[in-house]
Amino acid sequence: MRVMRWCSAFFVLTACRSLPSAEPLPARPELQHLQSRASEATTLATSLCDSAGPRLSGSPGSALAVTWAVETMTRLGLSNVHTEPVTVPHWVRGLEEAAVVSPGVHPLAVTALGGSIATPDGGVEAEVVEVSSLAVLKALDGGSLAGKILFANVPMRRAVDGSGYGETAGVRRLAPIQGAMAGAVAVVIRSVGTDVNRLPHTGALGAEASAIPAAALSIPDAELVHRLLSAGPVRLRLRLTPRLEAPAQGANVVGDVPGREEPGQVVLLGAHLDSWDLGTGALDDGAGVGVILDAAHALLGLTQRPRRTVRVVLFANEENGLAGAKAYAAAHAAELPQHVAALEIDAGGGMARSVRVLAQPSALAAVQAWEPSLAPLSVHVETGSAEGGADTSVLRAAGVPQLDVRQDVSQYFDVHHTANDTVDKIDPVQLTQLARTTATVAWLAAEQGIDFGRVPEPQRTRAH
Amino acid sequence: MRVMRWCSAFFVLTACRSLPSAEPLPARPELQHLQSRASEATTLATSLCDSAGPRLSGSPGSALAVTWAVETMTRLGLSNVHTEPVTVPHWVRGLEEAAVVSPGVHPLAVTALGGSIATPDGGVEAEVVEVSSLAVLKALDGGSLAGKILFANVPMRRAVDGSGYGETAGVRRLAPIQGAMAGAVAVVIRSVGTDVNRLPHTGALGAEASAIPAAALSIPDAELVHRLLSAGPVRLRLRLTPRLEAPAQGANVVGDVPGREEPGQVVLLGAHLDSWDLGTGALDDGAGVGVILDAAHALLGLTQRPRRTVRVVLFANEENGLAGAKAYAAAHAAELPQHVAALEIDAGGGMARSVRVLAQPSALAAVQAWEPSLAPLSVHVETGSAEGGADTSVLRAAGVPQLDVRQDVSQYFDVHHTANDTVDKIDPVQLTQLARTTATVAWLAAEQGIDFGRVPEPQRTRAH
Repeated sequence: MRVMRWCSAFFVLTACRSLPSAEPLPARPELQHLQSRASEATTLATSLCDSAGPRLSGSPGSALAVTWAVETMTRLGLSNVHTEPVTVPHWVRGLEEAAVVSPGVHPLAVTALGGSIATPDGGVEAEVVEVSSLAVLKALDGGSLAGKILFANVPMRRAVDGSGYGETAGVRRLAPIQGAMAGAVAVVIRSVGTDVNRLPHTGALGAEASAIPAAALSIPDAELVHRLLSAGPVRLRLRLTPRLEAPAQGANVVGDVPGREEPGQVVLLGAHLDSWDLGTGALDDGAGVGVILDAAHALLGLTQRPRRTVRVVLFANEENGLAGAKAYAAAHAAELPQHVAALEIDAGGGMARSVRVLAQPSALAAVQAWEPSLAPLSVHVETGSAEGGADTSVLRAAGVPQLDVRQDVSQYFDVHHTANDTVDKIDPVQLTQLARTTATVAWLAAEQGIDFGRVPEPQRTRAH
Repeated sequence: MRVMRWCSAFFVLTACRSLPSAEPLPARPELQHLQSRASEATTLATSLCDSAGPRLSGSPGSALAVTWAVETMTRLGLSNVHTEPVTVPHWVRGLEEAAVVSPGVHPLAVTALGGSIATPDGGVEAEVVEVSSLAVLKALDGGSLAGKILFANVPMRRAVDGSGYGETAGVRRLAPIQGAMAGAVAVVIRSVGTDVNRLPHTGALGAEASAIPAAALSIPDAELVHRLLSAGPVRLRLRLTPRLEAPAQGANVVGDVPGREEPGQVVLLGAHLDSWDLGTGALDDGAGVGVILDAAHALLGLTQRPRRTVRVVLFANEENGLAGAKAYAAAHAAELPQHVAALEIDAGGGMARSVRVLAQPSALAAVQAWEPSLAPLSVHVETGSAEGGADTSVLRAAGVPQLDVRQDVSQYFDVHHTANDTVDKIDPVQLTQLARTTATVAWLAAEQGIDFGRVPEPQRTRAH
């Protein structure tokens, strides 16, 4: 019955899209509820950050975050709230110091990249060789930097869709590898970010550990080294004391809004509970945690729950290993064919701009038809394919369809992976709109009978 | 002759001010030169910061800065370039760590206030007591904070004229005194600043050393502690290892644009060569150094030099003692009656908005008459009294008239006294306008025959 009613509405809406009309479309009462109630997303994100603080895998904060998540999901009324064990890497930052020691004496704002090995006791000191593009980095010859410190100075482009990050973040993985291959004793990169604060951006190496010590300079410090190099040789001293401890016990935290008709069909809302250690992970990913919990809470406030189950998964270890996502996929392997779609919120606190999907081609028209439902939020539906998040990429690889709520991330990379990622950076107005969009998309995916199918094989791997 | 020519122009300009007219006033060729040539102020400030780096009194950078200043003044063509010895305090920061240790574990961004004593080895740990206004701080009872850490959380107001700083900076001096009186084991203040970066603002205590360890938290960290306190007791651990070394040898650096007719009459342009140690002092006060050197260089480029001498003084030790200003006043005591006016640039890199004077009352009309000369720069003349800068306050106390070029400082206290004070924060467009304004004011004061007299006795002390 309800399915039939919805289907009629669906076809009416689809038809209306091609008609020029000044008439507002009649909104469903469920959408009115989800898009108008007061948002708790900022309150929830603040509560997480204030309770747990920094929460890198293996840290005391990561355990506090799991406790917080279980208590909060329970308080919000989710069902089947539980933890699922995840073995996580346990990397500890230690001290970090860098300075130009010639010409002059210039202390530098520096931070180890996640997974970096330590320098020798007392640090390393060497002449700096600058490389200013990924292309030149890739073309380095073996042994060409023997005894030097490689300085990878590749600026990131600011873009509303974050595409500048995709272009540049590869330097974090590539520079340590290429530097080691070329014989460098250490590598420092220009922070992958768009700000001008003396707060360097950390982030994971590609591998569990680097072959040589690897660190990021703040952008003003990278520019200083660049200017000094334009006048002559520069010597740099670097001291890092990170260590890799034995793997630790972490957990994914899971809770459900059980489906009223098809509880075995799961629309997964994901965010990650861990954060980097420099800030308190307010935008990365406290905001996402707040948004999906708020969306789930809003769904619980409807007169009737959606047909399918909406599952909230707060993943462990997104930042340095994806062990949480892998553990979830392994533990739920038998149910993944019934995971109809996954949506991860992990791009800060900026407003939602658009929605897109990656599914079997026949599902695309149904998602296009969400446009009028999202219009009151000034969100449109894109025709391009969704990418999914870092955690849900593991599900994408298993064929689970992906939904993206694409945000304005033009400011996100000012703060991302720095000490500045604290709750004052959340704009409650923007986060509220994001939570309402997420609730709307989750409801549409869980209420409608859309057959998303599986992600076609050639599209199961992300571009980056 | 030349004086007579100027006087005629002066009266014409004064008369024109009261007439509504669309005609642009005929500019003097000297003003055209000073207000149109390309500015070197940003290049000079960058050169200082890149050559010397951080340059707190007694540091290696402070010696490099003196060398740079002598070489640069000589290169620019100033006369009588020399150093004058100054004995300066030598405080060294050391390590600094703070964390909330209950509830949870929250590392805090902290920095010692300049002159703070060290904590005991291993730090101090105690419950925090928050005070949120200067009035409450002043009213603390003796012994009322026995064994506690005082947290002075007084927000600063953003204002284009910097008045918010005047209202709030007193907490830096008062909190350590009142905390010690009340029996606190340490004091942490909310940074006196207007940003939301996790980069705390240092700054001098009122005295050479505090009775208890004194530090500033970044504003986001202060807000975190405030939020945690709203839910219950908070324990904080603080470790600082600063030390006060034996006084060091510093120097003022002085150079002249000799007056062509009255070389004994001095218009003093001041800025300070030292900086705090966290950043490279680009805005505080590399910008001022660049501006006054650029202004002097522009004056040297005129067909004829101004009638009076324009003297550039780069003061030592403005940040923590004013030893440079005191040494200058002492060394030049006999000449101070011939110092016709002093102008210090020490408020960052924002545009000039207005000019004002503090002199004998009969001089005010002559300065009001500068309005048309400053109009092309969109700078007006204020009727209120000048305050002078921190260094020139010593000259003001001796009766030397003060000229202020008042800047837009609405952004300055985002950066002031933090690690973020680096050359990328200078906007060359704004600094050029400031340098042109400064050159204009210096030329008007040095070229015209205005008798500034002396500062009236009751006005020789600054309000703050």
